[in-house]
Amino acid sequence: MRSKVKRWLLGRPLKSNELGEQRLRKTKALAILSSDALSSVAYGPEQILLVLMTAGAAAFWYSIPIGIGVLILLMALILSYRQIIFAYPHGGGAYVVSKENLGISAGLIAGGSLLVDYILTVAVSVSAGTDALTSAFPSLHEHKVAIAVMFVILITLLNLRGVTESASLMAYPVYLFVLALFILIGVGLYNILSGHASPDLHTSIGTPVAGISLFLLLRAFASGSSALTGVEAISNAIPNFKTPASHNAAKTLMAMGALLALLFSGIVLLAYYYGIVPKAEVTVVSQIAEHTFGRHFMYFFIQGTTAMILILAANTGYSAFPLLAVNLAKDKFIPRMFKVRGDRLGYSNGIIMLGVLSILLIVVFSGDTEQLIPLYAVGVFIPFTLSQTGMSLKWIRQKPDGWVPKLIVNLIGALISFTVTLVFFITKFSQVWSVLLFLPLIIFLFIRIRKHYEAVGEQLRLATCEPALPIEGNIVLVPVSGITHVVEHSLNYAQSLAADQIIAVYVPFEREEEQRFQEKWRDWKPDIRLVTLHSPYRSIIQPLTRFIDSIQRKASESNYQVTVIIPQFIPKKGWHNILHNQTSFMIRTHLLYRKDVIVTTVPYHLKK
Amino acid sequence: MRSKVKRWLLGRPLKSNELGEQRLRKTKALAILSSDALSSVAYGPEQILLVLMTAGAAAFWYSIPIGIGVLILLMALILSYRQIIFAYPHGGGAYVVSKENLGISAGLIAGGSLLVDYILTVAVSVSAGTDALTSAFPSLHEHKVAIAVMFVILITLLNLRGVTESASLMAYPVYLFVLALFILIGVGLYNILSGHASPDLHTSIGTPVAGISLFLLLRAFASGSSALTGVEAISNAIPNFKTPASHNAAKTLMAMGALLALLFSGIVLLAYYYGIVPKAEVTVVSQIAEHTFGRHFMYFFIQGTTAMILILAANTGYSAFPLLAVNLAKDKFIPRMFKVRGDRLGYSNGIIMLGVLSILLIVVFSGDTEQLIPLYAVGVFIPFTLSQTGMSLKWIRQKPDGWVPKLIVNLIGALISFTVTLVFFITKFSQVWSVLLFLPLIIFLFIRIRKHYEAVGEQLRLATCEPALPIEGNIVLVPVSGITHVVEHSLNYAQSLAADQIIAVYVPFEREEEQRFQEKWRDWKPDIRLVTLHSPYRSIIQPLTRFIDSIQRKASESNYQVTVIIPQFIPKKGWHNILHNQTSFMIRTHLLYRKDVIVTTVPYHLKK
Repeated sequence: MRSKVKRWLLGRPLKSNELGEQRLRKTKALAILSSDALSSVAYGPEQILLVLMTAGAAAFWYSIPIGIGVLILLMALILSYRQIIFAYPHGGGAYVVSKENLGISAGLIAGGSLLVDYILTVAVSVSAGTDALTSAFPSLHEHKVAIAVMFVILITLLNLRGVTESASLMAYPVYLFVLALFILIGVGLYNILSGHASPDLHTSIGTPVAGISLFLLLRAFASGSSALTGVEAISNAIPNFKTPASHNAAKTLMAMGALLALLFSGIVLLAYYYGIVPKAEVTVVSQIAEHTFGRHFMYFFIQGTTAMILILAANTGYSAFPLLAVNLAKDKFIPRMFKVRGDRLGYSNGIIMLGVLSILLIVVFSGDTEQLIPLYAVGVFIPFTLSQTGMSLKWIRQKPDGWVPKLIVNLIGALISFTVTLVFFITKFSQVWSVLLFLPLIIFLFIRIRKHYEAVGEQLRLATCEPALPIEGNIVLVPVSGITHVVEHSLNYAQSLAADQIIAVYVPFEREEEQRFQEKWRDWKPDIRLVTLHSPYRSIIQPLTRFIDSIQRKASESNYQVTVIIPQFIPKKGWHNILHNQTSFMIRTHLLYRKDVIVTTVPYHLKK
Repeated sequence: MRSKVKRWLLGRPLKSNELGEQRLRKTKALAILSSDALSSVAYGPEQILLVLMTAGAAAFWYSIPIGIGVLILLMALILSYRQIIFAYPHGGGAYVVSKENLGISAGLIAGGSLLVDYILTVAVSVSAGTDALTSAFPSLHEHKVAIAVMFVILITLLNLRGVTESASLMAYPVYLFVLALFILIGVGLYNILSGHASPDLHTSIGTPVAGISLFLLLRAFASGSSALTGVEAISNAIPNFKTPASHNAAKTLMAMGALLALLFSGIVLLAYYYGIVPKAEVTVVSQIAEHTFGRHFMYFFIQGTTAMILILAANTGYSAFPLLAVNLAKDKFIPRMFKVRGDRLGYSNGIIMLGVLSILLIVVFSGDTEQLIPLYAVGVFIPFTLSQTGMSLKWIRQKPDGWVPKLIVNLIGALISFTVTLVFFITKFSQVWSVLLFLPLIIFLFIRIRKHYEAVGEQLRLATCEPALPIEGNIVLVPVSGITHVVEHSLNYAQSLAADQIIAVYVPFEREEEQRFQEKWRDWKPDIRLVTLHSPYRSIIQPLTRFIDSIQRKASESNYQVTVIIPQFIPKKGWHNILHNQTSFMIRTHLLYRKDVIVTTVPYHLKK
């Protein structure tokens, strides 16, 4: 039953060698990996205006130079990540780059930030998309948490089905969004150039503004650069591309950069020229669209595709998180279950974990995840800074042909990213301080996990540990609950093992019972030794373990191995289990975890 | 840690032979077992007036003859249960009496009703007590569910500590309540007799009233008899009494009957004489108290003790439910875990189950459990009717000395109880219909459980089943995950067992891996046969079970036993378990439940 539901939801299992077919063509990869970056165009320019507004509407012209600054940063990031893609064709992005060039700690800072960041991506973008939806249908507003959770579950299921299938479904909305914005920008520019738009709506560039400060401009720049979150996704996901993976990934990255640059500058330009003032209820993109088309079909088309791409932006997290988790798991910093490929060849555990954690975030914040945006941006720019510093060091160390321009690209990227990170910490400390708390925590956890794995490996390796103790003989204990068929079977089995000694153990709660049982035993199995352990406190496990301890002590002196044979009957139906006291199960668990004895379970399958 | 918290909450474990000390003296038993019955005085008379009010205030004089009717019923019940106590000194009340005299079905109807009823008792009385409390402190009103749940948890913990300890704590409020009502009734009667109370407040007895009908009177009688819920508690709890248990229980029962009769008639009489009209916000007892004392100390004393006894009424359920559950479990109608005595010699599973289920009821009904009162009354009168019919039959069949008066007592009890049950069904069908649904359901469940236990017993009994198959030889399979210390230890163990054949099984996911492992194995353990099972779908369990099946088929032909030895490493700390894939655990569970093979776990305890 359960497996049928699973099949229906996820599709048939795939063989390991079908992996190639699950890889992405460039067009699909662009859709699936850039929805996060592209969707940030919907709020990035607005963030700039929101900060400038504090100095008055006259300051809006600064959005143009700030926009140019963001474009330069974007260019630096894209070029830098292009270099990373070729330098690290197996993916890993900021984590691998920082680890290899700056050392483990830097790698873990980058990896930890990104890991948390992808969870934030999912929570924030699905919440934002749901908000867009419930703005259109206010009656849905009270169900917004449920709706957001439903979207996360849906995206999780799609990703469990496998990357190509989710890509097919998700490509359309992404391209529709790009198309919608291109039409918007095209028509808007035509209006401006043909003189249909009034030039009085904006202050001209260079107008002096009172109260403007470098701090304010930096803050506006940092806010605007939140539009760049998501550009690292492609570099993490190279293994998902069809071969030649690096080349395809690099081309996809350049295409994404170009799209992002065009859309971003278009929106910034139109917003400036139309003199758009950010409002609490209506987004900047929505105002531009209304200004250009009025509230007609195109307006709703733009709003609809925006809502969709915001929800789909979550999908970027689903592509990148499991791959980053695999890289961390390979290095033993997180549990190895993240390395296991599921039935459909996706890294199911990573996908499920991401879904669960982001649902948790959405529920805890009741769907109001906007307050997490600065946190999320910082979580992106920390690894940006680290990976580009790492790349710079790599060029300086290795000095390959033509390394100087490469170094300059990465160095500029590193500097701007670092500045943005600093500005975030200085101007929005109250919203991002928690990074300083959870990053050390997560890194501590990473290191603890790694230490555990190393200790386990050390203990298991044949070469390093003392040779296994020889087993000179076997002592078999059989806890018995009465004189039944199951017990007889267990005793027969014990006898077939050629054990050196077999002891049946019975735990009576009352003295009379003890007497009675001993007599019955003498008649039934006079050849097998019976030990009774009177238990005044009605516990079975305590007297049993005490007895086992004493046997164990004697046995280990002469390298004898103690085995406990536990008869257990297995009911025919699952619900029957609550009708039995599970004593076998409790004894087994207790012995396995606490004692150094071998535990053998003899099942007796009930037929009725 | 966990066991320390448990000690602190529940006290040290008790030996089985300390049971005698946990038994109840009469005064404590009266407090602990009659709080339910006595507390119903707080609402029983009011129920009568509420029904009569529908025919106008002039009809209130009927409360006197109806009250006399209830007293007769009470007398019949008390005398009948006194006879039951002596006839069935091991307790069990309605369930045992009905089962033995009317057959299994009647017994199960009685037992099922009572089982559900005790849960209702706890939920209803704790909610009522909490209501009384939040009426006094309105600011607590919004937390009433949390408060009620807290009270249930507290009572559950007290009962887990053991009956005598909970009795000591609970005796005071019960006796204070009785004292308070005696003072109230005494002062009230003095006022009336000394002429301090105006005789104009009531219509005199016998005044003809328009619109009165037999139906209405019967309904009022049925409502009033809800004051009798709880009188059966003592007959269920005889084993809790100090020896001679029957005599002590009978005396306690008589004392409770006398108290209940006095309090009930006093309240009915005062209500009639004062001409009290039931109001939605103020209870009848509260009105009488105010009329008698004004809003002074005595008034608050009466209100306070009433609130306390309502909450403590829940405790009656805690005494009776576990004992009834033991009786049902002894007859195999409910899971046998209800027979197990806990550390403090109480039947912990019954106590915990009662607590959990009544919390569930309180939460589901958001603390408004008043709507459950009729259901609860029906659930009491069905077993009343059955047990007294059973007793009547018993006298007719056995005809002991002086059986005729005994028969008359039980027959009258049975008839009145039956009438009350009928009246409930006729006049309050919309509130009690669900009994007709859940009673058959619960009885069906009882019978299914009994059938399962019987089937198991049949299969385990040595006499009835075919003799255990002889074991001619052993085939041992060792699933291996690599070449490690754990695997070596498991192989050594397999070799020490004198098995006829040992096969190591390896499940590679890729062809190259398969090749590589086979070569390594040939170098390491050339004398042990290795089978590799290539698994293109990356499942370990599937190929393994298929292989085991094929081995099993061949083995069973010649009476060979198949044993699977699973190496499992046990991390030093619990949280480390999430770092390992639990493959051993999954294989073991799957094999035990699905296959007829013996599963041996070789633990390897990690030291770091």
